[in-house]
Order: sequence, then C-alpha cells, then structure tokens
Amino acid sequence: MDISTAYKDNNYKIHVDRNILKNVLQTYTKQYESVYYIIDENIYDIYKDSKLSFIISPLVVTGGESFKYVSPLMHTMEALLASGIKRNSLLVVIGGGATGDAGGFIASIILRGVDYIHVPTTLLAHDSAIGGKTAINSEHGKNLIGAFYRPRAVIYDLEFLDSLPEDEVLSGFGEVFKHAMLHSPALLDELMAATENSIDITALPPYIIKGIETKMKIVIEDEHESGSRKFLNLGHTLAHAVEYKYKIPHGQAVMLGIIAALYISNELNGAGFDLDAYIAYIRRHGYPVQLLKEMDIDEMMHFMQKDKKNHRSDYISYVVFEDKNTPAVTDIKIEDLQNMLTALKERI
Amino acid sequence: MDISTAYKDNNYKIHVDRNILKNVLQTYTKQYESVYYIIDENIYDIYKDSKLSFIISPLVVTGGESFKYVSPLMHTMEALLASGIKRNSLLVVIGGGATGDAGGFIASIILRGVDYIHVPTTLLAHDSAIGGKTAINSEHGKNLIGAFYRPRAVIYDLEFLDSLPEDEVLSGFGEVFKHAMLHSPALLDELMAATENSIDITALPPYIIKGIETKMKIVIEDEHESGSRKFLNLGHTLAHAVEYKYKIPHGQAVMLGIIAALYISNELNGAGFDLDAYIAYIRRHGYPVQLLKEMDIDEMMHFMQKDKKNHRSDYISYVVFEDKNTPAVTDIKIEDLQNMLTALKERI
Repeated sequence: MDISTAYKDNNYKIHVDRNILKNVLQTYTKQYESVYYIIDENIYDIYKDSKLSFIISPLVVTGGESFKYVSPLMHTMEALLASGIKRNSLLVVIGGGATGDAGGFIASIILRGVDYIHVPTTLLAHDSAIGGKTAINSEHGKNLIGAFYRPRAVIYDLEFLDSLPEDEVLSGFGEVFKHAMLHSPALLDELMAATENSIDITALPPYIIKGIETKMKIVIEDEHESGSRKFLNLGHTLAHAVEYKYKIPHGQAVMLGIIAALYISNELNGAGFDLDAYIAYIRRHGYPVQLLKEMDIDEMMHFMQKDKKNHRSDYISYVVFEDKNTPAVTDIKIEDLQNMLTALKERI
Repeated sequence: MDISTAYKDNNYKIHVDRNILKNVLQTYTKQYESVYYIIDENIYDIYKDSKLSFIISPLVVTGGESFKYVSPLMHTMEALLASGIKRNSLLVVIGGGATGDAGGFIASIILRGVDYIHVPTTLLAHDSAIGGKTAINSEHGKNLIGAFYRPRAVIYDLEFLDSLPEDEVLSGFGEVFKHAMLHSPALLDELMAATENSIDITALPPYIIKGIETKMKIVIEDEHESGSRKFLNLGHTLAHAVEYKYKIPHGQAVMLGIIAALYISNELNGAGFDLDAYIAYIRRHGYPVQLLKEMDIDEMMHFMQKDKKNHRSDYISYVVFEDKNTPAVTDIKIEDLQNMLTALKERI
C-alpha cells in the first residue's frame, strides 16, 4: 500500500508492504548517479546475506540510540565525505527510529542537504519516519539538536518486523497505541481487544497503517509544531525523562508516560479514563510499570523542565485529554505537576 | 538604509547604517521572552565597554574560522541549552563571517531551529549574512556541513568596520570586488578607480550596498543554488583550496581565485580581461599574489575535487566569464584545469 503525503509541496510516498525494499528502492536509486547506505549494525547482521545482499559497501553504524550522538554522527559524515558523496547523491538510511533520526539529520546537514530515503525496520520507526523530524541527543536531553527535513520517500518493508526482539515490540507498540488513542476511542478499543493478552506482530499492520495516517493528518496540518502537532507528544513529556534516567526503550517509556497523562487528564479535567484497567493491561504485556512507583519526582521534574516544548518558565507543557475524544495541550504549573505525579506514585 | 528581501515568504530586513545596533536590535528583542548572544571574542574585547555594553552575559566565542568546527560548536550549543534556551528564544550572533556561519548553523539545529539575528562586524560578513547559508568545516574541507536557514534580520552597523585590521579589510574587499564584477564592468571600473592606490574603508559603503543588492538579486532567483547562484562562487573554487592550505583570510584567497578565473575565462572563452592590470592592482594592495606562483597544483587539484559544487566525477565545476558582462558555470576537465593553472603559475 502506498500513502502519499499532502503537503503544499515536496510531497513524498510512504510505501508499506511486505518484501518490497529492493524493487521499490530501485525506482528511486536509478535516478541518482551515486547512492550511499547507512545501516544499523543489528539489522545488517541479520539481513546481510538475504534481504540486504544487493547493497554494496554500506556504512554500517552502531545500533540504536548510541548512534544519536555527535561523535558517531561526525564519524559517519566524514566517512561519507571521504567516499565522495555529492549534493546530487542519494542517502538511504536503513534501521530503527534512532538510526532514522540521526541518518536523516546527516542528510539534512551534509553538504547543506542531500536527498534521503528512510527504510524503517522497527515498529517504532514507522513513527519517526513520518513528519520530517530529525535529531540527535545533547548532554542536556534527547533530540535537542536536529532539523525539520523531509525524506524523498519512506519504504516500510514489514518483513523487517519478523526479527524484532520482544523489547522492541513492546517499545514500538507504545507508539501504535498512542496513535490509536489520538485517532478515536473506538480504534483504541479495537486495538486493545486484538491485543488483549499478547501483542501478535502479525495482527498489527492495519493499526500501523491507521497510525501512519493519523500521524500524517496531524503533521500536515502543523508541520512546525505550533498547534495540533503537539498532540503527538502525548506521553512524551514524562517519557523522555524516564527514558533518559532508566535507559529503557523509547516506546516503553511512552507507554508509562501515557498512563501519567491519563491520570492527569482525570485529575484536571475529569476525563474519566479507567486508569486501573490501563495499568493492568500494560502490566500484563510486560511494560516496566514499577518505574512509575520508583521514580524520583524531583529528578523527573528537572529533566522535564528542559523539554524544548516548554515556553513559559514556571510551567511544563503537557498533552492531556479534555475528554476521551479530545486531546489538548495545557501548561501545568511545576508545583501542580509535581503533586500529581507524587499522587500517581501512590496509585501504582 | 533598510533593504528588504523579496522571497516568496519569510522575508527579512537588512538594516545598513552607522551606529544603529542597539536601537534596531531592541525593536526585535522586545518580541521575545528570552534573548541569547553569541559574540566573537575579538569584537567583544574591543566593544564590551562601549557599543556592546548593553549586552548582559553573552557567550563569547573563539574568534574567526576556529569557531567553525564541531567541537566549539557543540560546546556553545550545550552552553545555550544549559542556560535554558527555548524554541521561542532569539539568538543574536555578532561577529565576522565565520561567527555568522557557525552561529547561524547553531540557530538552525538547536531545538530544531530558533530565530536568529545576524550582526556582521567585518566587510566579509556582509556577504555571508545574505543568502541563508550557514556552515561549519569538515576534515575534508570548508563549509561541508551546514544548512540553508534564513535569519530573522541582519543588522549591519558600519561602525564596526572602523576597527578592522588591515588583513580583514583586504579579505572583505575581495567579496566587495567580486560583487562589483558580477554587477557590471562599469561598477567594477568605478570601484577600482575609487581604490586605485589604497582601500579607504570610508569610501566603501556605496559599494557594500550595491554588493548586498547584487547578491540578494541572485540569491532570490535561486536560493538553493541550482542555477545562477553558482555565480557567487566566482573565485571560490581555487580560493577554498588556497585558503585551506595556506591559512590566509577567505576574501584574500577569493581575490587570488578571481585572478585564476579571469585567466581561465581568457583561455577558454577569449573574454579579454587585462590580466596584468588586475595582477598589478591586487599586488599593489598587498594581496599575497606570490601564492599563485608557489602553489602545488596537484595539492590544489586534490582539494578542488572535494568541492561540493562538483557533480561529475572527472570534472570540476568552475565560474568563468563568457565575456566581461556574462558569468557562466562550466565543467572543466580535471586535466585541462591542471594545465591552465600550471600555465598561470608561469605568468605570475
């Protein structure tokens, strides 16, 4: 299935299907004189003799979040320059969300920008492959350095999901869950019913596609995140702090952050979420719910105050629900947030 | 005098006059909750008790080209993040071309982009402040990492030029000369007459303003450098190599590069430039003409082959003149260029 973006200009296609990488990629690469590949080492190890055997001398980069720092970034850029990358070259980035974030950032700044194609290989990456956000981490927090830069195309070959480790499934599912929640209570109910006792990856494609569509609708309305795009940050405010502190996978932290957002939505707006049911559901699937009980609130507050979405100094910008259908961005006083998170700890 | 850009959107003003910094800056800063300053240490040392005394706790950064590397860049970004910069903050960058290039690049990638105002303090910087190009250097050459990112405004306070050292005057004048040459033979003649025996900085403002207008006209036609913008690269192909090797100021290298471009224009197109007159003129003003005689052609070719403007592998993209009125971009075979530069050495 191909989905097309609907920006004013510079649109691109998101190709979603099983076993499409080589053929779809060729339709693009033949338009370029030279093509360079950045591939996550974990993915390359698994697929180098099969699915990725057609790729000659790729740059194999350190896997996951450890690639999102300035030193591996510079190392990769210097290697691309050494092998003669030009402005009219194409860069293909194959890997999970982190590889895509940093690889896309490289594409945006090398030679002041070259075309790139993102090939997500995890459940989580389907999310970061849409929206044109690229980034690396700073000493002061995640994703604090980056650019808005759209890919030439996204090729989402679902076959890569077959080799996903359990931890990654849980992580990616956090974003699938978030998009269902932002789409509608009906879709969320359907998703929770389909995954009541376990997350079967083969059951997810319809929800992944719905998630892509939901995200794209929001992103196109508001590419530079001045309004509704902020809804996509649901669960992320606390998640970034938890993830930074406890080094758990991003989407698992998001799932914990969603629990906090639902609790706060009930407290502030009487949104009426059945918190215990959600907690039981995510506990059953193996999310590290106990971190919500163990977390040091002062420390979490410290990290959350660094969030680049904040724009008033004594407040933290937070995505909550006004009711089950209506996400909203609200500025919460630091003290109030501290009290609510402390109360949540007691609930777990 | 205020000049307005004429892009399709995101236009900005270029304010040019003596002693305008504080007042003009205030009209912008009052629109932001927080304002951060990056200032070249050489400029800050000279003006901290006078012109810049109104600025509280700026980030004073290493002067000139040495700021355009990843390590000082990251250091400055982490300092900005540590002091709480937000997406809706304003970054003001005060300094020469290099400070502007790297400061603008910081603005483009910190928190995925904040507004910035460029305050050029040298003759050369008037050039880099227009056109939205930002960059730092790589191990493989100058300006290989960067972004296209427009400032919110440029404030060009000509008073800063009073303290320019001789070397910087020569350097900046190289770009003033280049713009006059791209404007028209008549303007170039006028400029050369006004500076026949020495470069009097107080005589330059009309040519600076013409230069800004010339560059802006070209840049607006072609922001992303697919066509006529390449003309601005006049003299730069060899200049980047000379500058990288001999560590001379950018605009001085450009002046040497222009001599090479004129020689090549005569050879390839019979453009009819009086080369000896140009060489005598720049020698009289103190440009290091002897480097054109000393340069190692193989080494120069090596650096020129890394130029990000090249797009065919056995050719080097070069700006030449078809006749005195008509600049053009041409791909020159590596071997031919090598021969012409070798012949030029003999001419010096």
